[in-house]
Amino acid sequence: MTDVVRVTVWNEYRHEKSDKAVADVYPNGMHEVIASHLCAQGFQVRAATLDEPEHGLTEDVLAQTDVLIWWGHMAHGEVRDEIVERVHQRVLDGMGLIVLHSGHYSKIFKKLMGTSCALRWREMGEKERIWVVDAGHPIAAGLEAYFEIPHTEMYGEMFDIPQPDELVFISWFQGGEVFRSGCCFHRGKGRIFYFRPGHETFPIFYQREVLQVISNAVRWATPVTGPKVELGHYPTPLEPIAQG
Amino acid sequence: MTDVVRVTVWNEYRHEKSDKAVADVYPNGMHEVIASHLCAQGFQVRAATLDEPEHGLTEDVLAQTDVLIWWGHMAHGEVRDEIVERVHQRVLDGMGLIVLHSGHYSKIFKKLMGTSCALRWREMGEKERIWVVDAGHPIAAGLEAYFEIPHTEMYGEMFDIPQPDELVFISWFQGGEVFRSGCCFHRGKGRIFYFRPGHETFPIFYQREVLQVISNAVRWATPVTGPKVELGHYPTPLEPIAQG
Amino acid sequence: MTDVVRVTVWNEYRHEKSDKAVADVYPNGMHEVIASHLCAQGFQVRAATLDEPEHGLTEDVLAQTDVLIWWGHMAHGEVRDEIVERVHQRVLDGMGLIVLHSGHYSKIFKKLMGTSCALRWREMGEKERIWVVDAGHPIAAGLEAYFEIPHTEMYGEMFDIPQPDELVFISWFQGGEVFRSGCCFHRGKGRIFYFRPGHETFPIFYQREVLQVISNAVRWATPVTGPKVELGHYPTPLEPIAQG
Amino acid sequence: MTDVVRVTVWNEYRHEKSDKAVADVYPNGMHEVIASHLCAQGFQVRAATLDEPEHGLTEDVLAQTDVLIWWGHMAHGEVRDEIVERVHQRVLDGMGLIVLHSGHYSKIFKKLMGTSCALRWREMGEKERIWVVDAGHPIAAGLEAYFEIPHTEMYGEMFDIPQPDELVFISWFQGGEVFRSGCCFHRGKGRIFYFRPGHETFPIFYQREVLQVISNAVRWATPVTGPKVELGHYPTPLEPIAQG
Repeated sequence: MTDVVRVTVWNEYRHEKSDKAVADVYPNGMHEVIASHLCAQGFQVRAATLDEPEHGLTEDVLAQTDVLIWWGHMAHGEVRDEIVERVHQRVLDGMGLIVLHSGHYSKIFKKLMGTSCALRWREMGEKERIWVVDAGHPIAAGLEAYFEIPHTEMYGEMFDIPQPDELVFISWFQGGEVFRSGCCFHRGKGRIFYFRPGHETFPIFYQREVLQVISNAVRWATPVTGPKVELGHYPTPLEPIAQG
Repeated sequence: MTDVVRVTVWNEYRHEKSDKAVADVYPNGMHEVIASHLCAQGFQVRAATLDEPEHGLTEDVLAQTDVLIWWGHMAHGEVRDEIVERVHQRVLDGMGLIVLHSGHYSKIFKKLMGTSCALRWREMGEKERIWVVDAGHPIAAGLEAYFEIPHTEMYGEMFDIPQPDELVFISWFQGGEVFRSGCCFHRGKGRIFYFRPGHETFPIFYQREVLQVISNAVRWATPVTGPKVELGHYPTPLEPIAQG
Repeated sequence: MTDVVRVTVWNEYRHEKSDKAVADVYPNGMHEVIASHLCAQGFQVRAATLDEPEHGLTEDVLAQTDVLIWWGHMAHGEVRDEIVERVHQRVLDGMGLIVLHSGHYSKIFKKLMGTSCALRWREMGEKERIWVVDAGHPIAAGLEAYFEIPHTEMYGEMFDIPQPDELVFISWFQGGEVFRSGCCFHRGKGRIFYFRPGHETFPIFYQREVLQVISNAVRWATPVTGPKVELGHYPTPLEPIAQG
Repeated sequence: MTDVVRVTVWNEYRHEKSDKAVADVYPNGMHEVIASHLCAQGFQVRAATLDEPEHGLTEDVLAQTDVLIWWGHMAHGEVRDEIVERVHQRVLDGMGLIVLHSGHYSKIFKKLMGTSCALRWREMGEKERIWVVDAGHPIAAGLEAYFEIPHTEMYGEMFDIPQPDELVFISWFQGGEVFRSGCCFHRGKGRIFYFRPGHETFPIFYQREVLQVISNAVRWATPVTGPKVELGHYPTPLEPIAQG
């Protein structure tokens, strides 16, 4: 583990440039709001966006990233497959990955899950109440039994993901649905956290609890210096093999 | 659930045609030995192989398959991506999938797992002892506390897979390694079982316990008629949404 | 596995005798309604109640029970510890156990879980909508994406249980809570299913979907003939131990 | 989370006083060796033993303990039930618990697991090789792909525990068995780690890797300040309930 945790906040960053309603809420992009919060928490933070060369995710940037935060929505298909492969390999090598809201449909999340990652959705600005179901989990630190998001897009079950290794939050929606909103996965040496809240026009990434969860998740997903995983051919047995 | 469970045994079927040592053990292909056993158990069985058109896995064949058994080894790369997509979609829709031995490196297994599925391996014909760690699991029905394979290829940890939803077997190897040898996964509506034993020259698919596990796994992976999963846009809330 | 699955429906059976409102709904006891449904499904069913000698759960009865269904509410403390020990041992030996609604606070469930099994609750007759979150699970067979209970007691998170081995249902409540309503656990050789719905005055055990889930769960929890688990001292190694 | 993590090392501390062979290895008790290591790692450490009043685990001591380490072997039955209840409650309230070796049969571990916690065992001083199966897990930090214990007591499967929430280690034994040697469980707000290695005469608690795992586990099991879990009756709904 490095002493200072290095976070890269990746944002598709299209809405904010093309849609005034979004720009009004996030004038410098959603990544800027999340990055500011993480800086204030003592993390070393940089941003990367879709329209930069290599989507801002060069080999070098990824090599210097302990935890990657991912937001995408309207342009999942424009993320180049070779960059997805690169991020995938880094996650298996230990980099943490935090996927926000509509990132459930990103190439990298679907590739790591192996399922469709489809869900039900509706956009009416209804209320969401997020319940903690694993009160001792580090990602729930500093929260109460639940918190509310006054106006949000609905995501409902069945959410087509593998059963999470650790389920931290379940959401209640005013319109009648439920959702597994905080899901931990271990893949290779990496740790992945999917967090449902977030939206491009509702000011959800300014909400205290949402930011608290994101910084908790960064700490949880920070890689540790475990065994080097060198798999493949090991022709010499560790123990003598008597021929039977 | 259909009354008679329909199984398709897929075999790469190259070794048996190109290598006399393999043909001596499996003169009609490995799939024939597995299929015979399953027929005798009352399943309705067909075979499919790599060199058939569409690898024998047409839309029609898959639509009539409840459980697919997969063996591949030397030609994983020749399986066409569109057929992998087709099998993947069928698994998410509920078809069972049983992946044998070197199938851990098949495109379909890696796609479903989301990880590298790499492992350590060694080929010295050493002894393997397979321990049951979930004695009440249906896939362990009819077994003793352990069974042995006298001569086998070694597969050792770390096996780069997601933590299994249910872990049924752990192997001990004479040369000093261990391996999670019987791993259950739920993905979409489908159930997947990875079973480590098997080889192209050791006569492992003639062994009683191995065949017992395969037929147990077919029963476990048989789809049930659960809810149709129709995800996507649901604009109308189930409950009235009072505007706050 | 026996050919015919033998089910014992255990009911505290106090409310129905002491409270007219309950007797109006369940004149012959709740167990009678559940038992009738299971008989019609082809199971061999008997009932047992708290006030019988040994609570109706003699060694003999348990030895002839493949799956035990448990309902208790007001008299958990009157169940004798030695009977709880007996049921516990039978579960570890493979008997299935299905715990209904207020049975979450029974001695046997708390003993098997190792946690407090506490939860939030409220009794206002509000609406519950039960969502399937694992559409391929055998316990969800025959259901739609969700089903509703028009009037019920609320149970809310955090439900203090171990993370379920398989989570099948999550409930939405009109009053604002969520709950993990269908939870599978493997303990020893036994399989346990906790199912939230049920009540002594709301006619929930007459509802088609609820009965469907109960019979699905009986099938899922039916024991298989796996390895005899004989643990303890094994002084003779299976392999020669060279002294280093 | 407190700034300095407070650890209590509990030791039965009978062998060391009654058996010269044990005293030769652990003249001041096993707890002293473990405590010294943890002190050197910066934890605030105290010890407690069976023969102290209240076994050294007063309300006050437990209230000031973030993580409790448990070693017992010959006198599990002498631990008073009321102290077990007290420790159990503290774990559910968030205290971490690390159970070593023969502690698998302690009252507190069995109570938390809900199963028999039985296993196979043999005492011939054979070799054990402990493989990491989750290389990214914090408890595997600083290790290689495996480490060896040259002479140890064998513990073999089937280990009658619930499936671990996270499985970190699997052991290989020279005599032919395997064992799930590093098992994580979440119960209530507490985190529990079972670690197999350890013995009263083999000098296992002096081994670098074993001590490394113990201090890793203490860090992993340290409680976080999550939601207060106040369960029970909540008569007022969070949302208005329209009567249907």
